[in-house]
Amino acid sequence: MSRKNLGAKPYLFPQPVMIIATYDADGKPNAMNAAWGGIVGSDEIIFDLGSHKTTDNIRLKKAFTISIADAAHVIPCDYVGIVSGNKVPDKFDRTGFTVTKSEFVDAPVINELPVALECDLLDVIDGSKFIGKIKNVSVDESVLGSNGDVSLEKFFPIIFDTAGHGYYKLGEKVGQAWESGNALK
Amino acid sequence: MSRKNLGAKPYLFPQPVMIIATYDADGKPNAMNAAWGGIVGSDEIIFDLGSHKTTDNIRLKKAFTISIADAAHVIPCDYVGIVSGNKVPDKFDRTGFTVTKSEFVDAPVINELPVALECDLLDVIDGSKFIGKIKNVSVDESVLGSNGDVSLEKFFPIIFDTAGHGYYKLGEKVGQAWESGNALK
Repeated sequence: MSRKNLGAKPYLFPQPVMIIATYDADGKPNAMNAAWGGIVGSDEIIFDLGSHKTTDNIRLKKAFTISIADAAHVIPCDYVGIVSGNKVPDKFDRTGFTVTKSEFVDAPVINELPVALECDLLDVIDGSKFIGKIKNVSVDESVLGSNGDVSLEKFFPIIFDTAGHGYYKLGEKVGQAWESGNALK
Repeated sequence: MSRKNLGAKPYLFPQPVMIIATYDADGKPNAMNAAWGGIVGSDEIIFDLGSHKTTDNIRLKKAFTISIADAAHVIPCDYVGIVSGNKVPDKFDRTGFTVTKSEFVDAPVINELPVALECDLLDVIDGSKFIGKIKNVSVDESVLGSNGDVSLEKFFPIIFDTAGHGYYKLGEKVGQAWESGNALK
């Protein structure tokens, strides 16, 4: 084995594709995607974003939802990341997505994406790191397993490759957490 | 479509499996895994961890590495998360992993895991959110593509399912970022 130094790069694998949805001052929905972020507590999530219509809306409403991009919606989920709601007024409508106002926070839930985290804004760190408090996870019944929980046999999140910029589906299961103990005793 | 409210849960999909490696005061390596965290800037990474030998070491050395768990090492990568270095003194040796001291930070690079982020501690927020500054990404040449960058044709990170607690491999590619624009014009 011989190793190479690639320098300082944001090379975590996998990265999620988070679709952040907000309302503006007029109650108009907007959405954009982000791959930089993750869970940081049992009911907390963080993402890092520069200045966007989405961040303006979050600062105004103190709320947002994060839907998980899935394999059935790769194109609209990518699209919301390359077009600005400030420049394309009908951006959201072009996605084909529709919304329902969250019961828990002042933000829209995207009806077509099966898993959404409804969040209130907790804090903004360094001007770009937004921490949300997860108030509820809204899940379409079509992706629930027989135990009533999200099942990856039914829900197909996509994964972002930060090196090659591809989107991938989940592959085969290769293990189960907390089952390695006996193997290494 | 009918939706169900699951309450406040840390349901981001996918989640990474980060193997955080540190030295203790005697220069002895330790490692544990974490799924809560993500990239929060072009050279910044965050993870959330309660009190562990790993967090003691990070507070002492102000440094750590994060190796990406891969399909070839599911068992040792799971094991470091279920056994405490405080209770099992030879925990690290049981994994079969070996280390080389990082050239960039005061922490060990695990030789057997092909991708490692070498980080200095930047900040700790709320007592459990550790932000690292990525100084270098160390990559085994075996996972580099012809363009000299990490290739997911050669590197097989695993993905944690926070609902079912399974580990998965990456599946088929379903899209490429920034290519949706024409589809929705």
